Amino acid sequence: MATDAASDIETHTVPPDADETPIAEAPPPPPDVDVAELTALLDGRYAEVRDLVRRNLTTYASILEEAETLPRDEYRDKVRDLVLEMAATGQTGMGFPTEHGGGGDIGASVAAFETLAYGDLSVLVKTGVQFGLFGGAILQLGTRRHHDAYLRDLVTGKLLGCFAMTETGHGSNVQALGTVATYDAGAGEFVITTPVDELGEESRKDYIGNAARHARLAVVFAQLDTQGERHGVHAFVVPIRDESGAVLPGVRVEDDGLKLGLNGVDNGRLWFDGVRVPREALLNQFADVAEDGTYSSDIENPNRRFFTMLGTLVQGRVCVGGAGINAAKVALAIAVRYGVRRRQFEAVSEDEEQLLLDYGMHQRRLFPLLARTYALHFAQEVVAARLHEVFSRGPTGDVDEKGRRELESRAAGTKALGTWHATRTIQECREACGGAGYLAVNRFAALKADTDVFTTFEGDNHVLLQLVAKGLLTDYAGEFEEMDQLGMVRFVAGMAVDTVVERTSVHKLLERIKDVLPGGEKWDDEAGILDTNYHLAMLRFREEHQLAGVARRLKRGIDAGRHPGEVFSRVQDHVIAAARSHVERLVLEAFVDKLAALPESENRRALSLLCDLHALSVIEADRAWFMEHGRLTVVRSKAISREVNRLCRRVRPIAVELVDAFGVPPSMLRSPDLVGS
Amino acid sequence: MATDAASDIETHTVPPDADETPIAEAPPPPPDVDVAELTALLDGRYAEVRDLVRRNLTTYASILEEAETLPRDEYRDKVRDLVLEMAATGQTGMGFPTEHGGGGDIGASVAAFETLAYGDLSVLVKTGVQFGLFGGAILQLGTRRHHDAYLRDLVTGKLLGCFAMTETGHGSNVQALGTVATYDAGAGEFVITTPVDELGEESRKDYIGNAARHARLAVVFAQLDTQGERHGVHAFVVPIRDESGAVLPGVRVEDDGLKLGLNGVDNGRLWFDGVRVPREALLNQFADVAEDGTYSSDIENPNRRFFTMLGTLVQGRVCVGGAGINAAKVALAIAVRYGVRRRQFEAVSEDEEQLLLDYGMHQRRLFPLLARTYALHFAQEVVAARLHEVFSRGPTGDVDEKGRRELESRAAGTKALGTWHATRTIQECREACGGAGYLAVNRFAALKADTDVFTTFEGDNHVLLQLVAKGLLTDYAGEFEEMDQLGMVRFVAGMAVDTVVERTSVHKLLERIKDVLPGGEKWDDEAGILDTNYHLAMLRFREEHQLAGVARRLKRGIDAGRHPGEVFSRVQDHVIAAARSHVERLVLEAFVDKLAALPESENRRALSLLCDLHALSVIEADRAWFMEHGRLTVVRSKAISREVNRLCRRVRPIAVELVDAFGVPPSMLRSPDLVGS
Repeated sequence: MATDAASDIETHTVPPDADETPIAEAPPPPPDVDVAELTALLDGRYAEVRDLVRRNLTTYASILEEAETLPRDEYRDKVRDLVLEMAATGQTGMGFPTEHGGGGDIGASVAAFETLAYGDLSVLVKTGVQFGLFGGAILQLGTRRHHDAYLRDLVTGKLLGCFAMTETGHGSNVQALGTVATYDAGAGEFVITTPVDELGEESRKDYIGNAARHARLAVVFAQLDTQGERHGVHAFVVPIRDESGAVLPGVRVEDDGLKLGLNGVDNGRLWFDGVRVPREALLNQFADVAEDGTYSSDIENPNRRFFTMLGTLVQGRVCVGGAGINAAKVALAIAVRYGVRRRQFEAVSEDEEQLLLDYGMHQRRLFPLLARTYALHFAQEVVAARLHEVFSRGPTGDVDEKGRRELESRAAGTKALGTWHATRTIQECREACGGAGYLAVNRFAALKADTDVFTTFEGDNHVLLQLVAKGLLTDYAGEFEEMDQLGMVRFVAGMAVDTVVERTSVHKLLERIKDVLPGGEKWDDEAGILDTNYHLAMLRFREEHQLAGVARRLKRGIDAGRHPGEVFSRVQDHVIAAARSHVERLVLEAFVDKLAALPESENRRALSLLCDLHALSVIEADRAWFMEHGRLTVVRSKAISREVNRLCRRVRPIAVELVDAFGVPPSMLRSPDLVGS
Repeated sequence: MATDAASDIETHTVPPDADETPIAEAPPPPPDVDVAELTALLDGRYAEVRDLVRRNLTTYASILEEAETLPRDEYRDKVRDLVLEMAATGQTGMGFPTEHGGGGDIGASVAAFETLAYGDLSVLVKTGVQFGLFGGAILQLGTRRHHDAYLRDLVTGKLLGCFAMTETGHGSNVQALGTVATYDAGAGEFVITTPVDELGEESRKDYIGNAARHARLAVVFAQLDTQGERHGVHAFVVPIRDESGAVLPGVRVEDDGLKLGLNGVDNGRLWFDGVRVPREALLNQFADVAEDGTYSSDIENPNRRFFTMLGTLVQGRVCVGGAGINAAKVALAIAVRYGVRRRQFEAVSEDEEQLLLDYGMHQRRLFPLLARTYALHFAQEVVAARLHEVFSRGPTGDVDEKGRRELESRAAGTKALGTWHATRTIQECREACGGAGYLAVNRFAALKADTDVFTTFEGDNHVLLQLVAKGLLTDYAGEFEEMDQLGMVRFVAGMAVDTVVERTSVHKLLERIKDVLPGGEKWDDEAGILDTNYHLAMLRFREEHQLAGVARRLKRGIDAGRHPGEVFSRVQDHVIAAARSHVERLVLEAFVDKLAALPESENRRALSLLCDLHALSVIEADRAWFMEHGRLTVVRSKAISREVNRLCRRVRPIAVELVDAFGVPPSMLRSPDLVGS
């Protein structure tokens, strides 16, 4: 085969993927997948929690149809009611302390949230707003007095709130928020104000879930101003509606109106006109203002303080990433099942049309995405477990700063890849279902529209990958949180490149490549194409090379006397590519680690196929880069494409079992015409 | 620079895109774009028609908001009313003969339709259903008796109809339709029946626009059965509602319900239970049934007859492709304008945040898509002109069969690339506008949802590319229309590969490469990276190589004794890749030809930049393939990526002018927060 492909290069005439070259291809029989056991493996330690959510989703399955038929306001109210009913089953409060009526298990709360993504996504996001964002801010940024005052009612959903951070002109750059909270020492109150700016409405709070209709409280992020001095962004509890639902004086609310999706969530805008709240409304976990207006914080540097505060809210990103991955599962479950029902054109038989899923192109479209979904699932499992571990020690627990920053970076990266994967997979699955996929009853309409914003909310994916890169380039140095984009450029430029490489995790990567592939430079002669160590070495090499390259380019730009901002702008695509490579490596490692821990079984064989397919698909997608950097010969590159096709054919007989194992409740698939009843 | 990059390969340490390497980079000043003139160039010979549509869109701009606020049935009725009002301005009837109240200009009708895609897309699709599909079928498949009976009222919209081809179980494979029209010689009538099949509802008509609410007539495609013999699929005019709108006896209608988008169009399902229509209801342009039931047709082979009939309906594909391209323009106009308003993070200045469009990554995301939009626009202009030319000679005009088949192939390919481009561009633009892009008022919601089905209706894009490949592999041989998928495989396998290459257009390609780059094998040493002939040679080489490769693989598969269906399935991704390469080459040639015909000017300089950016982006996207096939060195590959970045920076100063030149009416952009007022 290698010889055949080699002659190809010389003559330029042999086709690229000559996979019907007579090869002694006798693939082993397909694994005999045990679906229930595979579901149990995917569900992991939170199988009970996930099953509770599955039952709740099934009980309230009519919401999928009501989402289409109810007028907008009624749909919103229905979603709220449903969130409260689910709250009553304990499903949504799992992450809160038991003393306040919660379940005291952060990992469980993530598992519950992820599983909720099998259903109506307005319910998911409303849940996230109430318990994750609003509740999370009270829990993580507040202290005992806030916990005692709010948590119990918040956990039951009796007290609804919103998380008023983003402003029309300030999304990714939250430090530049315009809203101000000025301390009035005479009254012992903060005065919350939305400034009027030249550009118009840059500083109004915008896209705030729960604000347009249901929230009574808002956690408002604002520039803290006391004794004539600004101390950066802090969070305040501000009542916005009374018990009857009437908007309070000084507060203005506007509905964001119809959105692309998630129309069961009442997003809105907020303006504050000198709204007074008591001094104790400051969520004072990380900073406080004394009666006389004296500001105090254990964290001196304002940047670091800000990022520490934000860091406590990382659970939101973990949750959104998991939700994206699970939404992709629903799409795949529908498309794969449709592929074994729907026939089109006579092919193998003259009498019967061929099943879509038996077409090579159809397999190519769906199976690498299926494999990647499994990979991301296991990567998500790792990040959720880390989150649980770090946060179970309490917000000021004994985890070192670096561990926290690494968690934040991992959460950011997994969120970016998981949500992009959702967008791509749902689109591909929709197209793979043709016209039927366009009917709302077949689920793709809601899946597409509702998940679309995942790529830009809870952090724009590109900005999140920049955060990942910053952590890698500075090795989460002490200065890390104090640096903005330009600070990062200057920091890197200030070191010798060797120091960057030495200081960062990059050199560890190189060592780890040597560990798994001691053969040195000739991987693709020596390592088998299905050798997991080969896959790992490739992804580690790419990450190391791209990161060192970014460091060099930043340094060179600064050395050439360019402005750091201009240097950054030019290197930006390289920065983002390096971060993506980092996360891709983590994802593959998560899959490989999971496999390594499993005893031999038919299910393990099935997962091995998927792991190989995922790894080779990732390498194939960037094979140009690997060739450009001397890591892939033309011969091996073509062999990889052939192998991906071959693996797709081997996945075909077990594809239905692999999507069934996701355990999406049948009523959540809907799609009577696509998946059958 | 080349030296620098070369050392890169040896050491594996220098970063890939070291574009801040001190190069004597003094780009010429940006072109001074004349927007009005550029619009005139884009509008071409149908500027007046396009302006008429722009005025109509502006007059009825409120539909964009009404699409969000009206209940579904009212929205549908509103869309119908609007289509009728536009019809009264002559906008929608341009393609019909003047003697029946039309404009007698097919090219004008395409231009009008394309431009309509700047507005509400339900209006577009409703127009397409009534005048393109329903009207087109009456015009092309019918004869004088049908024209006299229906065209005049159809052109004014007084008579609304639908095009009942697709069935739930039969979309791409229309020849397998289940509906039957049996001739009853005694009564002189056809009896139209939806058979009940084992699988349930495979043979009901489905997704039929205008069927659920408004159509009085349906053009029904059914298997013609006379004198106990089946003659394949033919079209019949079947009344489905009376003048009051009541459904006629024997007809059953069901609403398709809510869809992902296009909810202003009333798609529905139809069943026929022995519905009788007179013998003259057969649209008898290509075949007829005599009173006694004798079947006759000038085209003997049933496959060829069927494809000839379908071929006359090619205008629909041309129109959808153009609509996709124009919808992408709307998205780009919004995203680019947002990029010069919205600031995020301090970068170059410490006092002011940086405009999004000044970020390298943002340019990378949007500008290659902008360049591709221009390329596709000119490719669309070519296919629309061919359509006009061929069809202006009448349905039975003197154009040779091969010319018609080439037009059909070109239309299929441009439709596939244009509609995928729309999906991708709209998504990227939405994400580039962050949370604001998620609000319905900012247009992306409708753009995304409404265009989504473009990739699978009027022919699934993958199936269309297979059609393109079939034409290329058989050189539109006489047998072309008679062949199904398997027939094509057998046909190709039956020839020597050299014969395939010789017979097809492939060998002409090789000659044309020699014409433009006589240097032989060493293009990338000898040809400049911005040399258009180099770009053309690259795309021609790829097409030639992939087509010859497909031929070889098909042949080898058959020679190895495999079933043609299995062979096809395995080579399918290669078949589709080859077809795509063919269309990409046509698109680039269209852009290059357009430029070649322009006198020197500032606008020509701007278009040259875009043409280079487009060509290099296309090569870059497939650079792995070019490296694998010896057409690209590592050094040149990296240089191309650097050049794409550089071209993006050069497009930056004229980006707003380039989107303004599309001439999207301001009220169609909506987006008060994104593009300003």
